[in-house]
Amino acid sequence: MSTQRTPVTVIGLGQMGAALAGAFLDAGHPTTVFNRSPEKAGPLVARGARHAATVAEAAAAGELVVVCVLDYPAVRALLQPVAAELRGRVLVNLTSGSPEQARAEAEWAAGHGIGYLDGGIMTTPPGVGDSANMILYAGDAGLLAAHRPTLAVLGDPVDLGADAGLASLYDAGLLGLMWSVFGGWLHATALTGADGVPAKEFTALAVRWLRTVSWFMTTYAEQIDAGEYPGDDATIDVQVASIGHLLHAGEARGVDGRLPQLHLALMEQAVAAGHGGDSYARIIEAFRE
Amino acid sequence: MSTQRTPVTVIGLGQMGAALAGAFLDAGHPTTVFNRSPEKAGPLVARGARHAATVAEAAAAGELVVVCVLDYPAVRALLQPVAAELRGRVLVNLTSGSPEQARAEAEWAAGHGIGYLDGGIMTTPPGVGDSANMILYAGDAGLLAAHRPTLAVLGDPVDLGADAGLASLYDAGLLGLMWSVFGGWLHATALTGADGVPAKEFTALAVRWLRTVSWFMTTYAEQIDAGEYPGDDATIDVQVASIGHLLHAGEARGVDGRLPQLHLALMEQAVAAGHGGDSYARIIEAFRE
Repeated sequence: MSTQRTPVTVIGLGQMGAALAGAFLDAGHPTTVFNRSPEKAGPLVARGARHAATVAEAAAAGELVVVCVLDYPAVRALLQPVAAELRGRVLVNLTSGSPEQARAEAEWAAGHGIGYLDGGIMTTPPGVGDSANMILYAGDAGLLAAHRPTLAVLGDPVDLGADAGLASLYDAGLLGLMWSVFGGWLHATALTGADGVPAKEFTALAVRWLRTVSWFMTTYAEQIDAGEYPGDDATIDVQVASIGHLLHAGEARGVDGRLPQLHLALMEQAVAAGHGGDSYARIIEAFRE
Repeated sequence: MSTQRTPVTVIGLGQMGAALAGAFLDAGHPTTVFNRSPEKAGPLVARGARHAATVAEAAAAGELVVVCVLDYPAVRALLQPVAAELRGRVLVNLTSGSPEQARAEAEWAAGHGIGYLDGGIMTTPPGVGDSANMILYAGDAGLLAAHRPTLAVLGDPVDLGADAGLASLYDAGLLGLMWSVFGGWLHATALTGADGVPAKEFTALAVRWLRTVSWFMTTYAEQIDAGEYPGDDATIDVQVASIGHLLHAGEARGVDGRLPQLHLALMEQAVAAGHGGDSYARIIEAFRE
């Protein structure tokens, strides 16, 4: 264990907290851990972690204090009593919550002279420590830049700027995108599976197709920022015609149609508003209400 | 125009048909075109295409006869009278339709001694001719391999095998995936946009995130084929807890919640069936009904 590496503390040793502490240990950081139920520290102590007996001791041990617990009220309950020990240190809150909670936590930290970064871990515990995975950070300007080498141990740090609420907001939005991708993919896998196509075969093309879809998203993002939705290549009207094939193929195979029916409803809403000749990006207005 | 290239015919000169003919012309193929309204042939004739006065003449001109019209009944109405001229040639049907229609068309072609490939163009007309884009083919074994260099002019040919219905089925499934990706992405873009994030900024991370999501899909596809859904890294129970943040963040910002509500309903269905400890891939059962 090199003494040149920044000493870190990890508070909360659930599956995710333990993965975070493990990644710091693997990278040679002096790592102090704390958990309400101390038996969870055992495997990490065996890997070289120091187990703090109290939150105060844990808070005082790390230059960076990473907290990953159940929710924001749990964060506050743990840290309120040790605000004095945290003064001058950097609190990295990787607990899941709402943007509003994150902003309140940043305000609390600022009021106690504590540096604050709010984060969103865009992977599951086994993916922690892999630089292919993103960890989103938002909060005090300059803090991420100053601690990037240490935080890069957990995954690729992505800087979302000074609004501490944005890590949670991006996190929620990206998970929503994930569930939608999963939904569309599972629907299509059920559809093709009904005619004997193995999931592995369909999925190989689906993954490739996502690169084409990404290209459309990039093009459409500029339309959204400009507020103009030219239907040069494919209009909503054309997609309304197209989705009929999907609905019929699903009905013929007994595949649940709620997901494509919702897409059709969104498209029809745009058509009813007179936007059938626009690009699909216009459908953002159906979400904005 | 090289006489060494395979002579091709394109029947149907809508936006897509015209793009197909244009790609063949660009690659130096002797290209004959036909459209019911002949004035659509003008720009292609100016680029070197030969305009057939009748379908029979068009069918007799190409070794490959590509047809891209409104629907399958239109294909049959056009080609039934010229079945004799098509005998011994390869009919490449890029018209959109159902798997059942494609299988019927393959049977019709086989009955007349006509080689048959059914295809799905996985791009918009401006994307035709770009090898980054997939064109799906299914039908008579060996035909795609024999004509790959010619068909590669239109986009990257993907061989789905001998069941002529599969190009339409994959096409429908992949478009369904696209609408789901668009839906999740537009919802998230509306959500982050409500807090001032430009679509372009969110989308850059969303596109990167799709690579992580693709990795999960690949892992989950193997679970689906095996019929076993171990929740090692992230269970459905964990996602049910997580989606609450998305729903609340959306409500707080006036963003339409129908899409995440549907995802929650699918998750709750799996939990109610006793599968809350499984991976998300288990949700395919909700689609299979």
